[in-house]
Amino acid sequence: MELVFLGTSSAIPTSHRNHSSIALKAFGEIFLFDCGEGTQLQMSKAKISPMKINNIFITHFHGDHILGLPGIIQSMAFRGRKNPLHIFGPKGLVEMVNIIRNFGYFSLTFEIYMHEIEDGIIIEAENYRISCSKMNHTVLNFAYSIYEKRRPKFIKEKAIALGINPGPDFGKLQRGIAVKVGDNIIHPEQVLGEERKGRKIVYSGDTTPSDQMLEFAKDADLLVHESTFEGKYGDEAGEMGHSTSVQAAEIAKKANVKRLILTHVSTRYKKSDILETEAREIFENSTVAEDFMQIEVER
Amino acid sequence: MELVFLGTSSAIPTSHRNHSSIALKAFGEIFLFDCGEGTQLQMSKAKISPMKINNIFITHFHGDHILGLPGIIQSMAFRGRKNPLHIFGPKGLVEMVNIIRNFGYFSLTFEIYMHEIEDGIIIEAENYRISCSKMNHTVLNFAYSIYEKRRPKFIKEKAIALGINPGPDFGKLQRGIAVKVGDNIIHPEQVLGEERKGRKIVYSGDTTPSDQMLEFAKDADLLVHESTFEGKYGDEAGEMGHSTSVQAAEIAKKANVKRLILTHVSTRYKKSDILETEAREIFENSTVAEDFMQIEVER
Repeated sequence: MELVFLGTSSAIPTSHRNHSSIALKAFGEIFLFDCGEGTQLQMSKAKISPMKINNIFITHFHGDHILGLPGIIQSMAFRGRKNPLHIFGPKGLVEMVNIIRNFGYFSLTFEIYMHEIEDGIIIEAENYRISCSKMNHTVLNFAYSIYEKRRPKFIKEKAIALGINPGPDFGKLQRGIAVKVGDNIIHPEQVLGEERKGRKIVYSGDTTPSDQMLEFAKDADLLVHESTFEGKYGDEAGEMGHSTSVQAAEIAKKANVKRLILTHVSTRYKKSDILETEAREIFENSTVAEDFMQIEVER
Repeated sequence: MELVFLGTSSAIPTSHRNHSSIALKAFGEIFLFDCGEGTQLQMSKAKISPMKINNIFITHFHGDHILGLPGIIQSMAFRGRKNPLHIFGPKGLVEMVNIIRNFGYFSLTFEIYMHEIEDGIIIEAENYRISCSKMNHTVLNFAYSIYEKRRPKFIKEKAIALGINPGPDFGKLQRGIAVKVGDNIIHPEQVLGEERKGRKIVYSGDTTPSDQMLEFAKDADLLVHESTFEGKYGDEAGEMGHSTSVQAAEIAKKANVKRLILTHVSTRYKKSDILETEAREIFENSTVAEDFMQIEVER
């Protein structure tokens, strides 16, 4: 599982920080979280093809998180995309995508499925689960969590002892499917070890710090949390529905995450040292994201 | 009069060429022609504030010429702009701006005046005149011309001979206003020399070459003409409503312009040498635009 930061600025872009967008390479797919203006160019610089993206997750409908959508969608159409595209986002998404469909002349060559989300699981796939949870911002905002579903270890010796021959039946049992051996049915739990914890990544979107965030980020391997300002601007951040680096670090610490990446950095910070230093005083494994930074989340 | 090329690519952006947009610094203002995705960032790199733009001219409603508008407009609102913004473009502009108004959550702090244009003069100011003319593209596309209105030379000796004292009356006559000296009324034409030709700049938008373009670009000091492909792809260019470098150069030559700038370059050209070389064989004073290129149009 690898995250590629395509944009790490807050409302206004700079030469070094484009608007919010993060690509996640995992499970043989590329998932896109938020899509600020210029994301298609950032993707091309990062050598990520928009054609490989099947799922886009929008945290909220502020321009710096969505204005790159028309460009990505028109670019997909220009290249003759046929595969459907799924877009997940807060209530209002259907209207927003209809706006995008009518923005300028172009022919859509593929289907767009729009998913207006509410708290809970939004994708339950064989290998992963994606959930969302409402956070506190000036407009409806969702944080997303991506959880890797790891299969329990397959205990070969037990299978052989039960009379199963190495081959397709091993694979079925590994994938949780019962098999028949003579007149006996062998169930997966007879040959599988204990449940294994998969990797978990959480992305906050724009939010003030909250108990909800704390709960949602619990034990994550990686928490990507917004950090618009440094600690001393806590009041200002709160009024604008944002967090400081100190607040993000406190969340990371209390939620017992392994690593914290700070993003959505205000233009006032030409260098992000202050944010990183402050965060590390509270939570050591903190890093401020930069555009095109790649973060591998290992087991 | 200075042009700053903010984007010079065709449909797909590259690391070196962003989507179409050109800023014109003239008459104490900044005029924006087309506004592809990422224009606000290109402007910030070129140190041009969106707050200084009062007039935006759109050639046509293809994404690569318009998708930067929501970002520019929201950015102006974010900075608390109060001055009205005028947007000129083909029929459909009102609907397009209404789409932009509803794209994501933001509060518009200023008025947007939308001008759906037809062939002819669209701004007649004291110092300049802006006109437009329909060209041939796959969708309705207008070329724009910017003409500097120069006042005739003020002949000081004639004024003094007519009994006018140096001072405010000189200025009035220079600006074309009659003045009273004793019982006599002195008219501007009594003290002004011959009409002087002002500078003229023409921007094509996306178009195939045409007699209409030839007529519209006549005697321009600078013609900015699209040149998506090199000469051998004339048929392909024609089918897609575009021009080649050779065709653009032929227009420049026949229209008797002083200088030709080629823009809207296909991604297939990593280097633009071919386009420039071909154009120069027909029209010597040809240059392929690059992002952030500045062109001063001198008298």
